[in-house]
Amino acid sequence: MARSTDGSMVVNPAPDDEREDLEDLALSDDYALNPEFVEMVVDAADRGDTRRLRELMDALHPADIADLMGFLSATYREELVPLLGADELGEVLSELDGALREEIMDQVAPAILAEAIGEMDSDDAVDVIDDLDARKRGQVLAAMSDVDRASIETSLSYEDESAGRLMQREVLAAPQFWTVGQALEHVRGAGDELPELFFDIYVVDPAYRPIGGAPISRLLKSQLATPLTEIMEPVTEIPVGMDQEEVAYIFDKYHLISAPVVEIGGRLVGQITVDDIVGVIQEESQEDMLALAGVYDAERGATIFGVTRSRFWWLLVNLGTAILASSVISMFQGSIAKLAALAVLNPIAASMGGNAGTQTLTVAVRALATKELNAANLMATIWRETAVGLLNGVMFAVVMGAVTYLWFHDPTMAVVAALAMVINLFAAAVAGILLPLAVDRLGFDPAAATVVFLTTVTDCVGYFSFLGLATWLILH
Amino acid sequence: MARSTDGSMVVNPAPDDEREDLEDLALSDDYALNPEFVEMVVDAADRGDTRRLRELMDALHPADIADLMGFLSATYREELVPLLGADELGEVLSELDGALREEIMDQVAPAILAEAIGEMDSDDAVDVIDDLDARKRGQVLAAMSDVDRASIETSLSYEDESAGRLMQREVLAAPQFWTVGQALEHVRGAGDELPELFFDIYVVDPAYRPIGGAPISRLLKSQLATPLTEIMEPVTEIPVGMDQEEVAYIFDKYHLISAPVVEIGGRLVGQITVDDIVGVIQEESQEDMLALAGVYDAERGATIFGVTRSRFWWLLVNLGTAILASSVISMFQGSIAKLAALAVLNPIAASMGGNAGTQTLTVAVRALATKELNAANLMATIWRETAVGLLNGVMFAVVMGAVTYLWFHDPTMAVVAALAMVINLFAAAVAGILLPLAVDRLGFDPAAATVVFLTTVTDCVGYFSFLGLATWLILH
Repeated sequence: MARSTDGSMVVNPAPDDEREDLEDLALSDDYALNPEFVEMVVDAADRGDTRRLRELMDALHPADIADLMGFLSATYREELVPLLGADELGEVLSELDGALREEIMDQVAPAILAEAIGEMDSDDAVDVIDDLDARKRGQVLAAMSDVDRASIETSLSYEDESAGRLMQREVLAAPQFWTVGQALEHVRGAGDELPELFFDIYVVDPAYRPIGGAPISRLLKSQLATPLTEIMEPVTEIPVGMDQEEVAYIFDKYHLISAPVVEIGGRLVGQITVDDIVGVIQEESQEDMLALAGVYDAERGATIFGVTRSRFWWLLVNLGTAILASSVISMFQGSIAKLAALAVLNPIAASMGGNAGTQTLTVAVRALATKELNAANLMATIWRETAVGLLNGVMFAVVMGAVTYLWFHDPTMAVVAALAMVINLFAAAVAGILLPLAVDRLGFDPAAATVVFLTTVTDCVGYFSFLGLATWLILH
Repeated sequence: MARSTDGSMVVNPAPDDEREDLEDLALSDDYALNPEFVEMVVDAADRGDTRRLRELMDALHPADIADLMGFLSATYREELVPLLGADELGEVLSELDGALREEIMDQVAPAILAEAIGEMDSDDAVDVIDDLDARKRGQVLAAMSDVDRASIETSLSYEDESAGRLMQREVLAAPQFWTVGQALEHVRGAGDELPELFFDIYVVDPAYRPIGGAPISRLLKSQLATPLTEIMEPVTEIPVGMDQEEVAYIFDKYHLISAPVVEIGGRLVGQITVDDIVGVIQEESQEDMLALAGVYDAERGATIFGVTRSRFWWLLVNLGTAILASSVISMFQGSIAKLAALAVLNPIAASMGGNAGTQTLTVAVRALATKELNAANLMATIWRETAVGLLNGVMFAVVMGAVTYLWFHDPTMAVVAALAMVINLFAAAVAGILLPLAVDRLGFDPAAATVVFLTTVTDCVGYFSFLGLATWLILH
């Protein structure tokens, strides 16, 4: 996969110059697919030139073929899929997700799909199988070997997004009386039973419970006669039912490369490796970011109607809260009729509250996700956030008072605008920190839906404080 | 680090029961620090019981000690720091960042700091050294061995957040004529020159340029007489100046475990391993999420005044845009004076536009970060987003028209509210997709500051379309 994109990258010797050229062309400097290369694929497909298409595919890593699928329309995808070998198809499928993966699997015959899935590591295989509808899943499983089928059915019995789904069942384990030399000899003889890649050897007791582990790089550095128990270290065991977000947290916190997965009772049933975790971390943090904005699925490959529908519901809830906030304004319609300037200034405190509250809320959501915020510093955090809200409230009250006076030349109006600002920035801070904490305590995702509640609070408090104070101090 | 938190986890045999009990107590089920344990630390510190404090520290992994520091106030931290050994202090420092790390380093004498940093892998060492002010950095470097100092000074010469900073200089390389057996023998003899952990062996040509690599697990599975060139595969070389976000993208895309880092000309100068990448991915995606909300530093350990100041500027910009939007309303003060109901309905279309635009913007920011959005699907994406905006606009126009009619019993007002909704949701979609694309094209971070521009557009268009249409259709 080495490619020369500029002087700082090295070209590896390759048998075929033409292929090398295509590889260079496929990706731009930033390792994203080149639009020109996508153009070449489209051209070849338009001409129905399958030989050229196959050549172009050969220049791509499966991850790039998956990217390519995302850039093409469905008709072009249909032409490409039959060109992929079973092994390649499996790798491409494991890179894709959602609508796109389902669409491609719909096109492929169960027997070919079974072959493709049989080539995958068990964690990827289950992930793909899980996306099939019940009928096709049955057909694919029936077309697989007994061993593969049994292994996949076991994995499917674990809950979605659990450690059991994430793990691979292939694992390197050794009894506690072995030496380094015995372990190395075992590995050299074992061949296909072993995972394709492994980073640690787990030492197990007679009941197959892990009692320690050693990185294989340490194995290599040790003398052959050294007992494994001498170089092993305690391992962090992952219960098979643990949520994948939790697993990612542990890997990140303790910088793990791999960890043994154990079932109830402690028996070793598989391992999770850090390369699986990178995907989980990407996924979970993107989910949080999208959820804060009210986007609830990745949407990639979804149709215009699908996207419209998925966003509609969040917007509908927001319409409800906007109408609720407007009903606060309607309480003061009489005041506005007397003094239309109130309608001009009215949105400002509400808008500032929404922004300040979102800052606080986002910081809290992040801190909850990384467990930097918990019972130990709860009160200190609440105090800090409300103090920040109050301080910024006072500063912006001064700014807002001055702006209002310069604009409307009315000192009472300036006082009203200033007071509304400090009240609303304080309310925004309180809501911004307490809402995610409460939602988290109730066992829901603090990133989801909390923004709607927050802006409801800041809009209503903002409108009510400004118009209420104006009615009281200016108009009475 | 094994601990029994519930029946599904296994207790490893440990020499000391008391210590085992403390380990169990230290962490709650979700691997976060137990508030009760933090309480115990505070108690011991209050009594000045350093022996007990040391016992409590012994029950913690360095990553947990770092967490503990975050939960304690500065006075307690001051008591703990002197209790840490140089090795442990180094590990704790590499887990911390920002204000907290600087505070702790301020307390430690240069000689001890030099010892602690000397124990670290080169990537962590540079990260820590970089946080010191120039004077103390000089003192610490002076207290280090010549070899350590030279190595750190080289690393510091690479740009912040580049591959050069992320890499460790220790790497396992072998000449291309070696066999598997020779490589294994070399590793067993090399000892301390090798990185503490390694996952791949790089095969280099006489100019020390990588020509391939093999996972060490494959080394172990191969016969001793096999030439390395027979089991190696092409490697993805990382130029030493590449941005860390780019490096993380490549690791995630190609599921790399480690990659060789090369300088201009192609010489191997170090390696980056996936465990370093996990941290980068966490960091970068959190940065995006926080930047979207207008929070520009992690703030952990920052004082109330520090946090207030850092948020003030974003809010000030927002105040400016809120006032700008209000000036749109002030253009229609006469209309509002005639019909105060306009002030009630006015914020709704603006608010809906803000929310719909934020959905679009966030999806675009994420797609840009993961390179799912680029020149190849640019037009299709713009078309999709504007079509979604228009579709949702039409649907919400119907809903809003109906609500307005039921509320104010005025058919013209209902038409005005409906038209304003469709105009603003369309404008929101256009701004939501084009703003991040334009900012990205200009070379800036599309997550930063784009939300301010977006809400300025949606507020101004929302107010202008509703009040303008009302003035034209109802009041003229």
